[in-house]
Amino acid sequence: MTEPTANTPPPDAPSTRGDSSHVTLEELQDVWFLLSQDDRLQGFLLLPRPDAEELFLAMTAHDQADLLLHMPAQDRRSWMRFLAPDDAADLIQHSPPEKKDELLALLDDVTRREVTVLLAYAEDDAGGLMSPRFARVRPEMTVDESISYLRKQAAEKLETIYYVYVLDAHQKLLGLISFRELFASPGARHMRDVMHTDIVTVREDMDQESVSRVVKEQGFLAVPVVDAQGIMKGIVTLDDIVDVVDEEATEDIQKLGGMEALDEPYLETDFFKMLRKRGGWLAVLFLGEMLTATAMGHYEDEIKKAVVLALFIPLIISSGGNSGSQATTLVIRAMALGEVRLRDWWRVVRREFAAGLALGGALGLIGFLRIVVWGVTTNDYGPHYLGVAFTVAISLVGVVMFGTLSGSGLPFLMRRLGLDPASASAPFVATLVDVSGLVIYFSVASVLLRGTLL
Amino acid sequence: MTEPTANTPPPDAPSTRGDSSHVTLEELQDVWFLLSQDDRLQGFLLLPRPDAEELFLAMTAHDQADLLLHMPAQDRRSWMRFLAPDDAADLIQHSPPEKKDELLALLDDVTRREVTVLLAYAEDDAGGLMSPRFARVRPEMTVDESISYLRKQAAEKLETIYYVYVLDAHQKLLGLISFRELFASPGARHMRDVMHTDIVTVREDMDQESVSRVVKEQGFLAVPVVDAQGIMKGIVTLDDIVDVVDEEATEDIQKLGGMEALDEPYLETDFFKMLRKRGGWLAVLFLGEMLTATAMGHYEDEIKKAVVLALFIPLIISSGGNSGSQATTLVIRAMALGEVRLRDWWRVVRREFAAGLALGGALGLIGFLRIVVWGVTTNDYGPHYLGVAFTVAISLVGVVMFGTLSGSGLPFLMRRLGLDPASASAPFVATLVDVSGLVIYFSVASVLLRGTLL
Repeated sequence: MTEPTANTPPPDAPSTRGDSSHVTLEELQDVWFLLSQDDRLQGFLLLPRPDAEELFLAMTAHDQADLLLHMPAQDRRSWMRFLAPDDAADLIQHSPPEKKDELLALLDDVTRREVTVLLAYAEDDAGGLMSPRFARVRPEMTVDESISYLRKQAAEKLETIYYVYVLDAHQKLLGLISFRELFASPGARHMRDVMHTDIVTVREDMDQESVSRVVKEQGFLAVPVVDAQGIMKGIVTLDDIVDVVDEEATEDIQKLGGMEALDEPYLETDFFKMLRKRGGWLAVLFLGEMLTATAMGHYEDEIKKAVVLALFIPLIISSGGNSGSQATTLVIRAMALGEVRLRDWWRVVRREFAAGLALGGALGLIGFLRIVVWGVTTNDYGPHYLGVAFTVAISLVGVVMFGTLSGSGLPFLMRRLGLDPASASAPFVATLVDVSGLVIYFSVASVLLRGTLL
Repeated sequence: MTEPTANTPPPDAPSTRGDSSHVTLEELQDVWFLLSQDDRLQGFLLLPRPDAEELFLAMTAHDQADLLLHMPAQDRRSWMRFLAPDDAADLIQHSPPEKKDELLALLDDVTRREVTVLLAYAEDDAGGLMSPRFARVRPEMTVDESISYLRKQAAEKLETIYYVYVLDAHQKLLGLISFRELFASPGARHMRDVMHTDIVTVREDMDQESVSRVVKEQGFLAVPVVDAQGIMKGIVTLDDIVDVVDEEATEDIQKLGGMEALDEPYLETDFFKMLRKRGGWLAVLFLGEMLTATAMGHYEDEIKKAVVLALFIPLIISSGGNSGSQATTLVIRAMALGEVRLRDWWRVVRREFAAGLALGGALGLIGFLRIVVWGVTTNDYGPHYLGVAFTVAISLVGVVMFGTLSGSGLPFLMRRLGLDPASASAPFVATLVDVSGLVIYFSVASVLLRGTLL
């Protein structure tokens, strides 16, 4: 996190908002996507510095890298140094590998060392998210000493000061105190006597989704990152978590939509890369869906005898697909939020069994009435319309129940197998239900319509 | 936000973690969902106070209300007073209306007034999210004076101190300074000379999704909430935003899955309420899908002549549905993140046209090969298998393109009409594509197979 106000001009300078004599931030943001790389850079360099800073911080690391690498050399250093170490590390991670050393060389010595350490972590780990700059004091300092010591530290670049961390001589984390509490504590007490010792930490190699769950559950503003020996390495702050929450939701949503996660903004994703991520799953689903042609081939004779049966195939299989899509969506999201865990599977499946029965019954009733009304008023469905109506209604109950059961059960199975539950996407469940829906429909028909239509 | 460490016991008390002589937090959390209301309360009251506080803060407002209303009267007051005003307001909002006054009466006078003000705001507005407790100073104070003044304020309940807000005598917001900057400023300067004046604020009636976008884009830890006259009302902090981000993603995901958003955790949603939210959309989709039966009825003669055509119906319409599901998912998520805006529609539709052509071409090729191979090696598809193969392949290109185009276009249409784009759910698009897919398929067949099969 970089404090957005960190490098603004002297506060008595007039506000630059609403000044129409040059490019404004809003104008530039509005056309940003339409601009060529050169035009973006030109517009960016025309902005008043505070606006440019605002825009720069709001960009993705990927865009920041793009812009920076196209800047004149003299601007590059200033913008690179403007970033906090964790953001600078992100930017370098999103640059071409051969530019890495060049960009690192723009940083001052202290920051370069910090960034180099951060680059050694996987981007999705706590270590890759954390900032190495936090407020640290020693246990033997008094509250008053700590406050004036921190006032000095703050003059240099200090990431944040929501919490003050108490470390021993080996940088081992002993305790923490919130800034508010530090402020409210009697000045003469020692840090070791006012600090909290029952603290929640995350390990540097914890994946970002778990880190975000810890931070969200605890409601902390920042969580300390430690190594296996308890040595404090940095802090992950809530604003990093917000990005993680968005990223993880996007991944899940895209997987639920039946594709691989893009990992980049839609309009910025390379077209062929996007095609691969969509085409792969589409082809898999297509191959699965081919089983419907096989299943239908099996029932060719029935269809020949009673073409009327074919009319309701899309209606029946799509109803199963829709109910399955609802169930899998609900369960996958509830799992992602930690509301539903593996051991809840029986409760969920029981609930979805009941839901499938009720929903299937309702749709079956609507379908039954529709066919009977048409059957009575027109001759579309022949003399045996009542048999057809019963077949459709009963099949709907079966298919919708199969949809809710497989839609809710598959995510559990995926997780049990160590796979991502979100891969049990709506289209995946729909494909499964299509094939089995056909079997259910024709099986019901062969029982109910034997001797009349079949 | 309540600082989780606010009411913990004297810091020199031993840590309570890992103590196995009574109920532990982890044990209780593990079985929470399985417990009756009475057992939950009993377990909760058995926890050591710091653990109970941790658990209480991690609960939803709905659960907090449930628990509180079942507590003995003497415990109720202490837990109600433990919450920050914004959390207390949330709890009251999630309680039965007739309990509202009773719960308000548990608060001290100052907090009760604050909570009453907060309750007047819609829950989803900035005003409903904000905390009325923030660090405020006057412009004529010096930095040193401000710091010692804030040390006194901090001893009372102060929500947060990331930023210090400079207000005039009418509570109008003049400027702000981050705590880090305040700390680093020379002690003798006046607040009016060190504060920033180009500040981003949100209006008290701004909806929470927009507030979260402002906070996320700016990367601020807290954003001041003002009324139309610029009077400062409170602050919305980043931890409130994290919850909003999760809530909004959940809503979108559930709508994308083809249902109304539940607004409650899956397992805690009343069964019949859930049925209504799913059944409504399922019935609408079912009625839409009935058009497939009508469309199929229109082609009954063709099916009679060439039953082989019926075999590929599920394959073709589901491929359109899957490609449409991908497109609508991508566009809706990109809109929710602000990556794609209304005016980008033409770029998106062009991109999806190309994607549909490529993906449809690929699936068409697979389908063509499948039918030809079967046609040559078996007699399943009759003598005119080549005609059928061409029909299926060309239909696939058309149907998949229709899927990507309607999947990407519908969210724009929805937004243009002022509706929620997420209502253009995957099942909704699939239903649309099913009906038109049938028309495309039989139209292609009637052209290509006239004189042979038809």
